Amino acid sequence: MKLTTVTAAALVATLAAPVMAQDTKVIGVSIPAATHGWAGGMNFHAQEAVDRLEEVYPELDFVLATASDPAKQVDDIEDMLATRNISALVVLPFESEPLTSPVQAVADSGAWVTVVDRGLAIAGIEDLYVAGDNPGFGTVSGEYMVSAMPDGGDIVVFRGIPTTIDNERVAGFEAAIDGSGINVLAMEHGNWNRDDSFAVMQDFLSKYDNIDAVWASDDDMAIGVLAAIEESGRDDIQFVLGGAGMKEMIARTRDGDEMIPANVTYPPSMIATAIEMTAVGLTSTAPVSGTFVIGSVLITQENAAEFYYPDSPF
Amino acid sequence: MKLTTVTAAALVATLAAPVMAQDTKVIGVSIPAATHGWAGGMNFHAQEAVDRLEEVYPELDFVLATASDPAKQVDDIEDMLATRNISALVVLPFESEPLTSPVQAVADSGAWVTVVDRGLAIAGIEDLYVAGDNPGFGTVSGEYMVSAMPDGGDIVVFRGIPTTIDNERVAGFEAAIDGSGINVLAMEHGNWNRDDSFAVMQDFLSKYDNIDAVWASDDDMAIGVLAAIEESGRDDIQFVLGGAGMKEMIARTRDGDEMIPANVTYPPSMIATAIEMTAVGLTSTAPVSGTFVIGSVLITQENAAEFYYPDSPF
Repeated sequence: MKLTTVTAAALVATLAAPVMAQDTKVIGVSIPAATHGWAGGMNFHAQEAVDRLEEVYPELDFVLATASDPAKQVDDIEDMLATRNISALVVLPFESEPLTSPVQAVADSGAWVTVVDRGLAIAGIEDLYVAGDNPGFGTVSGEYMVSAMPDGGDIVVFRGIPTTIDNERVAGFEAAIDGSGINVLAMEHGNWNRDDSFAVMQDFLSKYDNIDAVWASDDDMAIGVLAAIEESGRDDIQFVLGGAGMKEMIARTRDGDEMIPANVTYPPSMIATAIEMTAVGLTSTAPVSGTFVIGSVLITQENAAEFYYPDSPF
Repeated sequence: MKLTTVTAAALVATLAAPVMAQDTKVIGVSIPAATHGWAGGMNFHAQEAVDRLEEVYPELDFVLATASDPAKQVDDIEDMLATRNISALVVLPFESEPLTSPVQAVADSGAWVTVVDRGLAIAGIEDLYVAGDNPGFGTVSGEYMVSAMPDGGDIVVFRGIPTTIDNERVAGFEAAIDGSGINVLAMEHGNWNRDDSFAVMQDFLSKYDNIDAVWASDDDMAIGVLAAIEESGRDDIQFVLGGAGMKEMIARTRDGDEMIPANVTYPPSMIATAIEMTAVGLTSTAPVSGTFVIGSVLITQENAAEFYYPDSPF
């Protein structure tokens, strides 16, 4: 047995040699752990991208670290820099402030830096910035509402946690419905939270005798809204438009649920795009420095299957 | 001989079969022919990306067509759609107007559309838009001038053909030098042309007894400027900053030529980025719809070798 093990190890060493000779490059990927739905999807897609790229490019090696808090993420990145000789870092920062200095240190070492979704506290550290399109998310949502309600109607709108992201989304939405027959009865912050949105929707239902549709603007908020509608027994609400492409909601759209006729992407798989583009940067001469804003796409029954990932938790 | 040919053909068919079974996808690439320097580089990088990706992805097939005028490009695209069953089109439009309708037809067929550098006449046709960063090109250029002239100085500025692109570049430059000790003696349009810029620089040299540096803002214009300076025998001009990364100019920076200490990218290799990202879209689940603005990067003697492509004509 012992002899066999030694032989196997020797064999592995022999097989590994040509790959090492090819100048293996290591890409570090540092992301928040799967603490909630979107982050769960993000973790799934990061692992999937790493698995795919390790197949495609034998000369690339990956270190994927997930962190439950900013301090752990700082440690992860410092470790990648100190012990893994990374050629590139792909990071979705837990928070901007604490991560800025360790990511700066990676950039100073000469390694490539790709930042995803949330910016750092100092501009210009990263080589590549990959982010979602918040104004576009609102625009696509608003355009869908207009097309789904050709004769106009009364809607209520759910906002997220008060942030620039939320402001941009709402501004895009308002511009898109401007001049249509859609009348916004009320807007309240549901804080991207099911329970908050349940309570807000209960309040809306008691205030307004007729609501034609709801822009919930997020699938977690949509779930709270749907629960409140169901509890009320009301049948005036024709549909609820969520967003971000949660698995269960995509399935309902795919299966023709009339209450959930559409969705708008703000994809957690943007982490995969960031990893893929970083790999392109390390394996080709194509320039990948710059800013990639991933468009928000409308999902309807027609294309929902393309956006349903059976193995993803989100 | 005949028998051998038949056997070889049969062998090819046998070898090709598993690939076909893998559901081969065809990416069409339609670009202007290499009629001038930047387009020459663009053609080189398109071919290089196609060659690389055919190696990496046996399941992808490419059709690369170059056109000397818009009518030929329209034909190329219609042909790709009619006879090549393309899954995706990467197009750098010769002109916006005539290309809009044929590219729309490709999108309507359900194929993916990536547009590079110049937009179409109607917004929203493309899935992915890849472009250079004109304001950033000006900003990086201005920041370099400020760092290279810590005590300030008198400069002259060359503008391109009057266009939005030119306005954005100049606005970025002016903002970057604002509040520094750099004084712009004059700005004139050299129209991205060597001869025009030679004449403008002759005029500047006769008007101003002392010029510390020149923002030529383009390598073709820089060549005209350098010729005028050389002819004048003047030695007050310390350096000329061009742009776009022409091969000969990158070499001079790399080799330590003090008159050409830097360059700013507006890379013709952006076509390679567009082709690579389209390939990522067809081979992975990573979303690649959206807008990728490729950053303009400062090239100095330190990193010039990375931007020198010995086999490219540009």
